[in-house]
Amino acid sequence: MTNHINNKALFLGINAENRDFFQENLVQLFNDHANWRKNLYPEDKDLVTAQDRASECFQATEKSISDALKEMSTRLQGSSTPWQSPRYLGHMNAETLTPALLGYFGAMLYNANNVAYESSAPTSLMEVEVGQDLCKLMGMDKGWGHISADGSLANFEGLWYARNIKSLPLAIKDVEPNVVAGKSDWELLNMPIPTIMDLFEQTQSRIDVLKNNSARALAKEITHLGKWIVPETKHYSWVKAADVLGVGTNDILEIPVDDHFRMDIAKLKVAIDQTIAAKIPVLGVVCVVGTTEEGAVDHVDQIVQLREEYAKQGVHFYLHVDAAYGGYARSIFLDENYQFIPKDELKSKFAEHKIFKSDVNWPSDDVYNAFKAISYADSVTIDPHKMGYIPYSAGGIVIADSRMKDTISYFAAYVFEKGVKVPALLGSFIMEGSKAGATAAGVWVAHQVLPPNITGYGKVIGASIEGAYNLYDHIVKLKSMDINGTKVNVQPLCQPDFNMVDFVFNIEGNTDLALMNKLNEEVYNLCSIFSGHILQCKFVTSHTDFARSDYGEAPLDIVKRLGVPDSEWPKVANLTLIRSCVLTPYLTDPAVCDYYFNTMDNALADCLGQVIAKLK
Amino acid sequence: MTNHINNKALFLGINAENRDFFQENLVQLFNDHANWRKNLYPEDKDLVTAQDRASECFQATEKSISDALKEMSTRLQGSSTPWQSPRYLGHMNAETLTPALLGYFGAMLYNANNVAYESSAPTSLMEVEVGQDLCKLMGMDKGWGHISADGSLANFEGLWYARNIKSLPLAIKDVEPNVVAGKSDWELLNMPIPTIMDLFEQTQSRIDVLKNNSARALAKEITHLGKWIVPETKHYSWVKAADVLGVGTNDILEIPVDDHFRMDIAKLKVAIDQTIAAKIPVLGVVCVVGTTEEGAVDHVDQIVQLREEYAKQGVHFYLHVDAAYGGYARSIFLDENYQFIPKDELKSKFAEHKIFKSDVNWPSDDVYNAFKAISYADSVTIDPHKMGYIPYSAGGIVIADSRMKDTISYFAAYVFEKGVKVPALLGSFIMEGSKAGATAAGVWVAHQVLPPNITGYGKVIGASIEGAYNLYDHIVKLKSMDINGTKVNVQPLCQPDFNMVDFVFNIEGNTDLALMNKLNEEVYNLCSIFSGHILQCKFVTSHTDFARSDYGEAPLDIVKRLGVPDSEWPKVANLTLIRSCVLTPYLTDPAVCDYYFNTMDNALADCLGQVIAKLK
Repeated sequence: MTNHINNKALFLGINAENRDFFQENLVQLFNDHANWRKNLYPEDKDLVTAQDRASECFQATEKSISDALKEMSTRLQGSSTPWQSPRYLGHMNAETLTPALLGYFGAMLYNANNVAYESSAPTSLMEVEVGQDLCKLMGMDKGWGHISADGSLANFEGLWYARNIKSLPLAIKDVEPNVVAGKSDWELLNMPIPTIMDLFEQTQSRIDVLKNNSARALAKEITHLGKWIVPETKHYSWVKAADVLGVGTNDILEIPVDDHFRMDIAKLKVAIDQTIAAKIPVLGVVCVVGTTEEGAVDHVDQIVQLREEYAKQGVHFYLHVDAAYGGYARSIFLDENYQFIPKDELKSKFAEHKIFKSDVNWPSDDVYNAFKAISYADSVTIDPHKMGYIPYSAGGIVIADSRMKDTISYFAAYVFEKGVKVPALLGSFIMEGSKAGATAAGVWVAHQVLPPNITGYGKVIGASIEGAYNLYDHIVKLKSMDINGTKVNVQPLCQPDFNMVDFVFNIEGNTDLALMNKLNEEVYNLCSIFSGHILQCKFVTSHTDFARSDYGEAPLDIVKRLGVPDSEWPKVANLTLIRSCVLTPYLTDPAVCDYYFNTMDNALADCLGQVIAKLK
Repeated sequence: MTNHINNKALFLGINAENRDFFQENLVQLFNDHANWRKNLYPEDKDLVTAQDRASECFQATEKSISDALKEMSTRLQGSSTPWQSPRYLGHMNAETLTPALLGYFGAMLYNANNVAYESSAPTSLMEVEVGQDLCKLMGMDKGWGHISADGSLANFEGLWYARNIKSLPLAIKDVEPNVVAGKSDWELLNMPIPTIMDLFEQTQSRIDVLKNNSARALAKEITHLGKWIVPETKHYSWVKAADVLGVGTNDILEIPVDDHFRMDIAKLKVAIDQTIAAKIPVLGVVCVVGTTEEGAVDHVDQIVQLREEYAKQGVHFYLHVDAAYGGYARSIFLDENYQFIPKDELKSKFAEHKIFKSDVNWPSDDVYNAFKAISYADSVTIDPHKMGYIPYSAGGIVIADSRMKDTISYFAAYVFEKGVKVPALLGSFIMEGSKAGATAAGVWVAHQVLPPNITGYGKVIGASIEGAYNLYDHIVKLKSMDINGTKVNVQPLCQPDFNMVDFVFNIEGNTDLALMNKLNEEVYNLCSIFSGHILQCKFVTSHTDFARSDYGEAPLDIVKRLGVPDSEWPKVANLTLIRSCVLTPYLTDPAVCDYYFNTMDNALADCLGQVIAKLK
């Protein structure tokens, strides 16, 4: 069964090469549904008759529908971003999977609502199965997972778990003091998550009383919980999470990053030490696997180790991994039985499954170790709509211990109501209420075709990483361009941990950081929707800004490589970069790379020419 | 342009009568997209070649996709709920609109992400337009609205606004004490929302400092804000909202309902009086327009009036209307220029626009006044995926004052970045992050065909209400059925405020409430997914339970009408009802009603027979 995936068959194609296959299945799914309707109650007469159809208002209504769809289609064609083309190297976007698109469409016709089993029998079961897949992907065999509207909500849910669980020991002290007799408040606020879950399970008979004395019930309980630690490269949804969940943005503690844009472990340690010295607990720590601006992978393994070290001092924090972006890439490390492949077997497994076409220097030990350690987290955010190649919106979360569910639930989580082994009311123990069954169906179909291991998603994500490394190598080799007699240098940020390549241009001899930023900003403008004519752009990308207030001195290295003196950094305190995420599976073929990198270089040269002419 | 909507042309049809039209437009949208890809960069060669296509693994991958889709389709056909049929009268579900389904599909191919304008130029603009439509629908001309993942999230957002805004005056006291000099904390916690917004606008220069002293930044600020008042008939998401937002479920204050299942205004007044007597502020009040279990419409007008009366005492609360379910029905009261139709013109306007086929005794003055008063709320939840006939998931929220946005935003809300008049980063001032542009497109296309006023949605929702009243009349007339010699009585809960009809069966002479509940529960089981063979059910419905702890004595009337003595109520303290929401547009034709009500009666009689045989 291995090696049966051909990445080129998974997508519609840049020129809609696979349109016949797509359309055939599209029409088939529609006909399946239409025939289902027709055959369901054969005795029920048509309610739309030939007479209805002949009426003026019927035809006017149909025309109005077609007209509105035409208008929509015209607008979409006029200014949509061409994700499907390798000319697009910007955000975490590419084509989405044919099975996911068709799965969504096919299921949308039945319009299930996965908020409750009653409204979604087939798709609720698919969501349960997808949740199990995500647990296997994360190596959490006692876990539980579900699809969320997006990664921000999954992050909120992670903090919600942390907040409610960490507040339980104080509630237990109020409700059943004998259970925690002799423990100080500090000890209660520093209980390991598994211990809390054990205690919670033991007090099931008084679960509601317990919850009514915890953070879910009393705002004041939240004020004891301490700091929520994130790297400075965190997604902004973490700040929003602290606001929304009532933890308060002032209790977010941001840790500087190292020169690889990963959370600086030494500085994390200092921050934790200072916090506990001030007798403030650490509610939790977030590691990011795939930062949104750099694709950096935090040292999850080292943070797991740190957690163990602090445990010896009686300090316990919740650990959430924000793998919204990078999560699916764990597939590449899992064999067909979802076992994490030992480091020394990785190369041969990659070869066996044809993960890379050329010799790609990935993963580094750091990245390998980080992905491996994810299974030790308490919860993980993972977005199917990023590296799962699923259309928007499909986020997801996995928790390590399925008992955690009841700490945020409104009714008993799994009511095995009437013998059905799926949640009766999913909406009572996740953030959202109504949610499209079609989303679960789209992800489910994709997972049938591409299991989240080396035989499935591993192959698609391997192509993406290989493409990113090809781009990185291209930029390293490029070094500089001659733009109508002006030499323009280009430097990549650093070797990518994953599939994102950031790079920066500077005019040879320019030592003005503000001018360099302007150059890159304007190049980006000409290669994006802000050019005013995105579909005339020959190359489309995204950009990012590293503010010194967030990034500290980490960007100094690239600034200096571009010939800008150190002294500019504190003065300007911002660096503008071009940001190219490579999701396209096509940049693995040397001829294809040549063509598209050449196209990109020409487009960038043209834009640089325009910008330089304007700057002069 | 009026009377050009024919409801029967809007849907695929119970027997897929309109399949040709649907399929034609479906294929057209797909071809539009495929051609767009093909024509975008004519010089870019196909990346999928005939050789690729001939390979074994390519074909195996295609087969694997088709197989997975077939398996999905089989599962969907096997146990999906037949929303499209008038045999389904249960949850708020029916067919969804052809323009919305096709709009979603057509836009999904372009996979825009409305989190940011850059990733969604055409669909972000559609979301802005939909937001404007929703403001017009709610009569909020200084408002702002957006699509949310669902109604629960919109409710969370409503509470988020209330919490952050109500906490601002204390923050202003900390940051700019002179601005609120002489005001007591009680006065600061009781400022009218518009006054707070004016002050907030005046302190724009120090907006971040202000926010950093408010509830968003400091958990302890939340503890001052007081009670969040909801009717006992509220959706459970309000309890979840208090948990998630850190307000605490213990600060939810639930008000009993009157005999029409609307929040009891006298009891609301007593509760507010007691709260302020205890020097606890009222953070806000939620009215429900369309309760999920009864379709009841709270007296929004009387609560607005109450707010004015309390204002005279210096007590100000936030007012949120949860019109997730009923919100779109405001369309029926709006003329083509979105003006609320005066009560004395309603009948003639209904006649002019052919809203009802027969003489429907709707709306009552209470319902009319309630819908009219929604425009005085501070925010409103409204779900396109309920009475908007949009596929899941599409919720929505409207705020009355667009300045409110900045109280929950992370960056300035409308950065008119590069001259574009849409939010640059929508995700920075709503709860969610990534969100499907396709959702906005689906709603947008539906709104083009059906403007949310009497000329558009009014006609579809009118048919739904007429169907509900026909069902109600049928049950009133039915009174009882002979089930194999056993007389079974049936009673409706009360005349519907909207389109939901609850009813209860009892065996003649049975005075045992627990037995009556069992009868209805078992009938429901046989008319639902829990029968084990939903597609063999001749009639499908939903059910609900009224617990005495929530409903007080309100259910006594129907209990007594069914021959069960008063004394049973405190003993059993629960009433099980059959719950039929009528969204189908077809139950307006007398012949169609006869056929489906007859089918329903026979199905229910059959189920009653089975249950009674088992009970004996």
